[in-house]
Amino acid sequence: MNKRTEIAEFGEFGLIDRLTSQFVPKRTSTVKAIGDDAAVIDTGGTDYLLLSSDLLLEGIHFDLTYFPMKHLGYKVVVIGISDILAMNGYPTQVTISIGVSAKFSVEMLEELYEGIHSACEEYDVDLAGGDTTASMTGLTIGISVLGTVSKKEIVYRNGASKNDLICLTGDLGAAYMGLHLLEREKRAYAGNNNPQPQFEGHEYILQRQLKPSARKNVIDALHRIGLVPTSMIDLSDGLASDLRQVCKSSDCGARIYLERIPIARETHAMAEELKADPVVAALNGGDDHELLFTVPLAEQGKIMEIGGIDIIGHITERETGVYLITPDGGEIAVRAQGFKE
Amino acid sequence: MNKRTEIAEFGEFGLIDRLTSQFVPKRTSTVKAIGDDAAVIDTGGTDYLLLSSDLLLEGIHFDLTYFPMKHLGYKVVVIGISDILAMNGYPTQVTISIGVSAKFSVEMLEELYEGIHSACEEYDVDLAGGDTTASMTGLTIGISVLGTVSKKEIVYRNGASKNDLICLTGDLGAAYMGLHLLEREKRAYAGNNNPQPQFEGHEYILQRQLKPSARKNVIDALHRIGLVPTSMIDLSDGLASDLRQVCKSSDCGARIYLERIPIARETHAMAEELKADPVVAALNGGDDHELLFTVPLAEQGKIMEIGGIDIIGHITERETGVYLITPDGGEIAVRAQGFKE
Repeated sequence: MNKRTEIAEFGEFGLIDRLTSQFVPKRTSTVKAIGDDAAVIDTGGTDYLLLSSDLLLEGIHFDLTYFPMKHLGYKVVVIGISDILAMNGYPTQVTISIGVSAKFSVEMLEELYEGIHSACEEYDVDLAGGDTTASMTGLTIGISVLGTVSKKEIVYRNGASKNDLICLTGDLGAAYMGLHLLEREKRAYAGNNNPQPQFEGHEYILQRQLKPSARKNVIDALHRIGLVPTSMIDLSDGLASDLRQVCKSSDCGARIYLERIPIARETHAMAEELKADPVVAALNGGDDHELLFTVPLAEQGKIMEIGGIDIIGHITERETGVYLITPDGGEIAVRAQGFKE
Repeated sequence: MNKRTEIAEFGEFGLIDRLTSQFVPKRTSTVKAIGDDAAVIDTGGTDYLLLSSDLLLEGIHFDLTYFPMKHLGYKVVVIGISDILAMNGYPTQVTISIGVSAKFSVEMLEELYEGIHSACEEYDVDLAGGDTTASMTGLTIGISVLGTVSKKEIVYRNGASKNDLICLTGDLGAAYMGLHLLEREKRAYAGNNNPQPQFEGHEYILQRQLKPSARKNVIDALHRIGLVPTSMIDLSDGLASDLRQVCKSSDCGARIYLERIPIARETHAMAEELKADPVVAALNGGDDHELLFTVPLAEQGKIMEIGGIDIIGHITERETGVYLITPDGGEIAVRAQGFKE
């Protein structure tokens, strides 16, 4: 009998480590392979080439009961280019591959591609190719994004060091609460042919789930003021998991402060209505696609100048771990979730 | 009621045309977007960057009842890099994304990655990243491949012109007959816990299905003798479909000769046993990953010099269509199949 180890025993990152440990890059053009938001390739000029790939599956990453195809197309592109921005780079081209079952009509796919087109226009990227195939069940979407970044300005996950400030764009947990609202309304109207879901007042959290933005404006601002972060990551898995990634890569610890974690009023309201904890949504919710980055302490003034960025804590030595500090001075260990996406 | 057009009404290429017609590349770095084996990007040096993406789904592209995970991993890489070779380029890096359901153990995925590793070693490419996610059902694999090609030597699908010779590497239909053999044995032993499938004498066609090769050796040979084809395509969809792609892109017709289509002895034998037509397998079977390319008539001697390449016909004017010529002089129109992959 062969040994059988369940995937659930590993986190996503543990699984990737185990599967890819034997792969050692051999080409000199491979500057960074696995382990950051994007692969880094040296094509010989003053810029590095960046490449990021994501896979999105119906039933895991999106539910077409309430997710409009057009919004899905838009979001897929945002998810892809967010990985390039997290390297302090700019996206240039995307390829989109889709697997579709017979339940999808050409018109539905046209809506998907309208959303893709809209995002490509907004973020100034070209659709450069892809693959189209039949599928047994549901919709599968693969996206790969190319980008460029000046060799002098590339930012990895592993450059944070002690006393660096931990900076965060936007607010957290809204996409997660939007998802819960959509799931609630789906349950309430299951089997109802003329549903009248209650979405008034929840536009913000719905938009954060259904039509998120990529933080290109922040990368623009960082370039404008000439500030290169010491580390950066795209918040796709949630603050807890992604902060731990930065700390693991940078071989450091962190202290973040509960009262400084930006949570929107609408997120608080929805959490109260659903009897959920907004801080849990912010820490573990994921899907926010904000940027988490670190800068030297001396750059605090420049961060303030940009605006719209919160300093939520600072980097510590590795031995002190990764902790969330409550207003009364309590310390809660920040833990990542298991295998989800 | 919204209009509903079935995907089956379009071929794969018709669907792609319809979905992507509104996308017009805007960046000067996008040399070629949709419509060839790979996207072509100008990063500023003497080489172009190539990017190709493929999506492979369980139940559509592979059946794990008989497809060993290790071979699957190997084949995925071969499929990906074959697209880069078809541009007369060399693959450099790949990203692999997988979606896996709970039926897969870590050990099964390790086998998959062993096959990926083996192909990466053999074809000298680095694994540079990817994505790992849960899936509701089965295994989904996305692969993107980066490659490079000298700007002077890049080969597109659209460069064939009248009187060019149509050249083909290897032989056709074997992978397809291998698939049929595997399907037959699967049916014969359904429900049998100790199957004894009859594979003796069929090693060649099984290998062509389960462990195909990419024709890097032919690209090496073309470079060595300094011969740049006028057009080239990877035979993934079958000779009929792929030859029509070349003719459509190059705005030309073609004549190929039935008796010149290379079909292996083992493919003939299996076809006879299964009462199938080996020519149909060769024309429409797909999955061969051989290269189809055209060269000027004057280069016939150089092609002979390389060896292992068959000249199966020649390019004609568009108005004369794409025809298969039988030994008795009969003309059969070459048609592509519908939406499959």
